[in-house]
Amino acid sequence: MARRTSEFDLIERFFAPLAAAQPGALGLRDDAAILKPEPGFDLVITADAIVEGIHFLAESPPGDVARRILRVNLSDLAAKGARPLAYTLTIQLPLDRDEAWIEAFTAALGEDQKHYAVTLLGGDTSRTDGPLTLSVNMFGQVAENKMIYRSGAQPDDDVYVSGTIGDAVLGLAVERGTYSPGNAEQAEYLAKRFRRPEPRLALGRGLVGRASAGADVSDGLIADLGHICRASGIAADIDISAVPLSEAARNAVTDDQPLHLSLLAGGDDYELVFTAPKAQRAAIEAAAADAGISVTRIGRTRTADPTAERVLVRDGNGNRLEVKRGGYRHFEEE
Amino acid sequence: MARRTSEFDLIERFFAPLAAAQPGALGLRDDAAILKPEPGFDLVITADAIVEGIHFLAESPPGDVARRILRVNLSDLAAKGARPLAYTLTIQLPLDRDEAWIEAFTAALGEDQKHYAVTLLGGDTSRTDGPLTLSVNMFGQVAENKMIYRSGAQPDDDVYVSGTIGDAVLGLAVERGTYSPGNAEQAEYLAKRFRRPEPRLALGRGLVGRASAGADVSDGLIADLGHICRASGIAADIDISAVPLSEAARNAVTDDQPLHLSLLAGGDDYELVFTAPKAQRAAIEAAAADAGISVTRIGRTRTADPTAERVLVRDGNGNRLEVKRGGYRHFEEE
Repeated sequence: MARRTSEFDLIERFFAPLAAAQPGALGLRDDAAILKPEPGFDLVITADAIVEGIHFLAESPPGDVARRILRVNLSDLAAKGARPLAYTLTIQLPLDRDEAWIEAFTAALGEDQKHYAVTLLGGDTSRTDGPLTLSVNMFGQVAENKMIYRSGAQPDDDVYVSGTIGDAVLGLAVERGTYSPGNAEQAEYLAKRFRRPEPRLALGRGLVGRASAGADVSDGLIADLGHICRASGIAADIDISAVPLSEAARNAVTDDQPLHLSLLAGGDDYELVFTAPKAQRAAIEAAAADAGISVTRIGRTRTADPTAERVLVRDGNGNRLEVKRGGYRHFEEE
Repeated sequence: MARRTSEFDLIERFFAPLAAAQPGALGLRDDAAILKPEPGFDLVITADAIVEGIHFLAESPPGDVARRILRVNLSDLAAKGARPLAYTLTIQLPLDRDEAWIEAFTAALGEDQKHYAVTLLGGDTSRTDGPLTLSVNMFGQVAENKMIYRSGAQPDDDVYVSGTIGDAVLGLAVERGTYSPGNAEQAEYLAKRFRRPEPRLALGRGLVGRASAGADVSDGLIADLGHICRASGIAADIDISAVPLSEAARNAVTDDQPLHLSLLAGGDDYELVFTAPKAQRAAIEAAAADAGISVTRIGRTRTADPTAERVLVRDGNGNRLEVKRGGYRHFEEE
């Protein structure tokens, strides 16, 4: 008999193949799935959702949407030192997304699954008359009691960040046409840093037992370091001149301190920000070298001062810089 | 300084208290959570999302929305024989939902958490310019390798259903004003059966080791029994005169066979449909008595016939009834 594309069909044709390698997914044909971390490991769970027009640009290519929803969740696992295992996906599709869209979307999921060694475990697909909405729960494992918490930092720890900071904010501006670097190669580099976050999973695993606390840079370097400070009951100073910038970002901020500061406040870099005791410096360097990702010491933690903000930004001479409130989504709430 | 309601505030004020009893939730202040089933148990995971205007009526009271998203997921665990532990929630709130809405929503979550002994584990809150959308992953545990699958039914098993069937379809019609029973008490009964599904958790746990296969009745009795049959590679006959109806449903279907059949095709009852070998009859009755839920034998499984539908409905004399195709969302796809 004639087939029409129903949720059942979509799952069978496009989603079930993504779950084929995961026995506990039961072919996406049961009401539930089973997941077992290896003996001696804790199961670590993240949950993040993204909405078209809010967390990513409307009209984003389906492959970019697929990569974003997986990678923002993988980045949370990276910050915890966990190895990803599997994920569930619930998706609400606007009526104008046809089979070709779903095919491209699931093809990109499949590529990222291979790259990050995760498989689909379960989920739910429905239509919506609102914007495209995707919600993922990502499951990973980490050696028992070894997860890197936000709450483990001590005063006088080093503060590190991986990679470079601020590219995603500039990349979003490039995508929106509000910033145009002179150099086409740098424009492409920045746009890609926004469109294709790269979760620092290998680095995160290398930090287990070395970092005292960690988070990923999703809300912005200052805000996410602020989360660590609040959870740990401490504060931190960072030196703006130490914060690593890409060549493209350096070009953008030349002689523009407000823009420079705004890169530290902007989000979506999906780098790792973490703290570690000084005694771990050599071990942290070794972990970064093993992972092939640079890490940079950008400051130091200290005891909390109830009269000041959790995270203070200073210039190379130790003078405090005033950061415009508007840049701080989470700071306003303290 | 002045506080405005941000995502951070909402989580601290309304959601973090729901996670307080779950150490692995880390106060909703980390990037991830940890969950451990007890030794000797498998972790069972369901994922279901609901969208306003599609899965529940627009303008539904916040408490009904909260109960629906939890209970549809709890019902999946019930069908698998699992005991619920915790859940993650991602929610996209339309801009017109104010703090009072969120307060009522989270208060109802809290009540249901107590009732079903689950706690919030993590999640994500954002705004949307589309409809209210909620996605839950529910985690439960079941003794190792004892989950009740859809795929375990054998030919010549008994087919059972719990409670009564068809009330939710009629209740939705009552809520929409398209059906009005003569009797106000029955109207209220039916509407409540639609608005407040009751996951059959105690019964599900009692069926572990006794039922050969199970699912919950969310897509409709015939469709969900069809899922079991497909997963198990078998077929089933059910006797319409044996399918248990409430007094309100019996009143509605008097002398109206098409309506009677449509109740078997309608969804949202959140009862359990399951199969069991004949040798388990006494044990099934005992499990139902222990759980305080009636179960009714409504048919029998048989080997699959490739030329016929998976589930055939017969009258009390064994004559096959033709069920209108429109009622069968999932049947069209075979």
